[in-house]
Amino acid sequence: MRTVRVSIIGFGAVGQGVANVLIDKKKYLEDIGLEFKVVAIADSRTAVIDPDGVDLVSVVNRKKTEGTVGDDKLTGLEIIETIDHEVVVETTPTNIVTGGAGLHNMLMAFKKGRDLVTSNKGPLAMKYGELIEAADASGSKFRFEATVGGAMPVLNLARDVLAGNTITNVEGIFNGTCNYILTRMMEEQAPYEQMLAEAQELGYAETDPTYDVEGIDTACKLVILANCVFGMNATHEDVTVTGITKITPEALMLAQNDGYVIKLIGEVNDSRINVAPKLVPIDHPLAVGGSLNVASVQTDLAGPITVTGRGAGSVETASAILSDMISIYRE
Amino acid sequence: MRTVRVSIIGFGAVGQGVANVLIDKKKYLEDIGLEFKVVAIADSRTAVIDPDGVDLVSVVNRKKTEGTVGDDKLTGLEIIETIDHEVVVETTPTNIVTGGAGLHNMLMAFKKGRDLVTSNKGPLAMKYGELIEAADASGSKFRFEATVGGAMPVLNLARDVLAGNTITNVEGIFNGTCNYILTRMMEEQAPYEQMLAEAQELGYAETDPTYDVEGIDTACKLVILANCVFGMNATHEDVTVTGITKITPEALMLAQNDGYVIKLIGEVNDSRINVAPKLVPIDHPLAVGGSLNVASVQTDLAGPITVTGRGAGSVETASAILSDMISIYRE
Repeated sequence: MRTVRVSIIGFGAVGQGVANVLIDKKKYLEDIGLEFKVVAIADSRTAVIDPDGVDLVSVVNRKKTEGTVGDDKLTGLEIIETIDHEVVVETTPTNIVTGGAGLHNMLMAFKKGRDLVTSNKGPLAMKYGELIEAADASGSKFRFEATVGGAMPVLNLARDVLAGNTITNVEGIFNGTCNYILTRMMEEQAPYEQMLAEAQELGYAETDPTYDVEGIDTACKLVILANCVFGMNATHEDVTVTGITKITPEALMLAQNDGYVIKLIGEVNDSRINVAPKLVPIDHPLAVGGSLNVASVQTDLAGPITVTGRGAGSVETASAILSDMISIYRE
Repeated sequence: MRTVRVSIIGFGAVGQGVANVLIDKKKYLEDIGLEFKVVAIADSRTAVIDPDGVDLVSVVNRKKTEGTVGDDKLTGLEIIETIDHEVVVETTPTNIVTGGAGLHNMLMAFKKGRDLVTSNKGPLAMKYGELIEAADASGSKFRFEATVGGAMPVLNLARDVLAGNTITNVEGIFNGTCNYILTRMMEEQAPYEQMLAEAQELGYAETDPTYDVEGIDTACKLVILANCVFGMNATHEDVTVTGITKITPEALMLAQNDGYVIKLIGEVNDSRINVAPKLVPIDHPLAVGGSLNVASVQTDLAGPITVTGRGAGSVETASAILSDMISIYRE
């Protein structure tokens, strides 16, 4: 049995998802020879630290009932700096203006030689090159499948499963909120505003939907793909972006009559990074409905490989984080 | 640079595909620290052996012009037994009655402690348990992504990319010939026989199409999934199979009018293995057209993950073999 000490920095939906998944998968992990022992958890105000392993069930309950994880006042950054452990699970909120706490947390993790798994897009969309350099300098493993498409595996698919292939293009739907709104607009022949309101009611869209509907979230994911798969050193400012707010039900109907759907498509290859609404043939693998994400990876040997999955959700995103953790430590 | 000595046993479309891919990807492999040195190639009648590395370009040319790979008379089995090398690429034709030469080749590879990568379904659909046991006993690595869906990655997706998940169901289209015929029957409102003839003309179907259109090929792939993903010890006799020969264009039209397509769907979970034509909603991720393959993997954490790709083809299948080889030897 290999015991790996873990910190969870950021304890919102994704951080709690990771805790829940580690509770549920204790036996599964033991069967493959792994114990992930969480020795510290921090939210934005409080922390809990236990070198013998935090009681995850009670921390999850406390967070739900009291809104805090513990009585300790160490910040996430201080935990990463001072508490002995092997892997940091960085799940603080994405900030694409400054990189937020996430950027400092990641750089500290690498400075201390710790491995890092994250769902936090902001730092990777802003400072990819600097982060990779810092991770390489300390020999830290750095995995971030969860940043692009939640449970839909695209980075690890490209790197591991399609090894040997040169990837020439990636395009897809990387934002479930936009996909939901467009799908519902077509189904109901209803205007954008009405279906946005429905998405907000159902929790598929934020109160301020700008980040999703203007294509910024998709742009950040494309930047990560551009850097990770195509070896660029792009930031989200290098992306040409058009969102979905100007699309009308009439346009969707016209498209449908010709056998097409309209989707917010992100595309990246070695010459451009682009987000825009596009016509997709109804029987094309990219034409998936609801809030699904989809990515089509064009390769030189295998041809096009398309993968579809849930792009968000607490447990789904935690699943991608767990797969990354396992891939680092499984013998 | 890590040098790995390779034999290619079976030099039809897939074996030649592997040779061509190794020629094309020499530089790519060097960049990731690998040299695959082919020291022996066998077809059904001849062989070529060179401990310093066979000249792949001239062997591929000779096979094309003269129909043979060399002047040596060693069989594939004798090569595996007597020539020093690390990995056997087993690409002899599938035989689901006896397992064919492939079964003996695989068992010999494991007896000699060699690793093995294969596209040959027959032995795995017949004697999975025996093969895994033999590989484990000698510490041999045994990889067979190419046996299920060609370039469409499903085994490695389930095992590596979705690690941490429990897989509860796999369903999909695992035969491109059937998908092509059904897609064209719907497009042309034409009977089965006519579209089979077209598929034969285009090289998508064999002169004797039984193996594909009666669902036997799909059944073999499901058996491999059942054994590999669900830990069963099934053979193709455990599968309930219905093929596509009784499907009419009228049935396809009726389905289409209700928003459905008819596809030959293979499904496996821990209680059943089944191949049958099924109705699939037109906007469902499994509703892919042409000769594509698709697999939908139901997981406990990530939800459903669907992957689409080319299920056959010389280079496409060789791509899956190369990815397996890289995953064994990449540091």
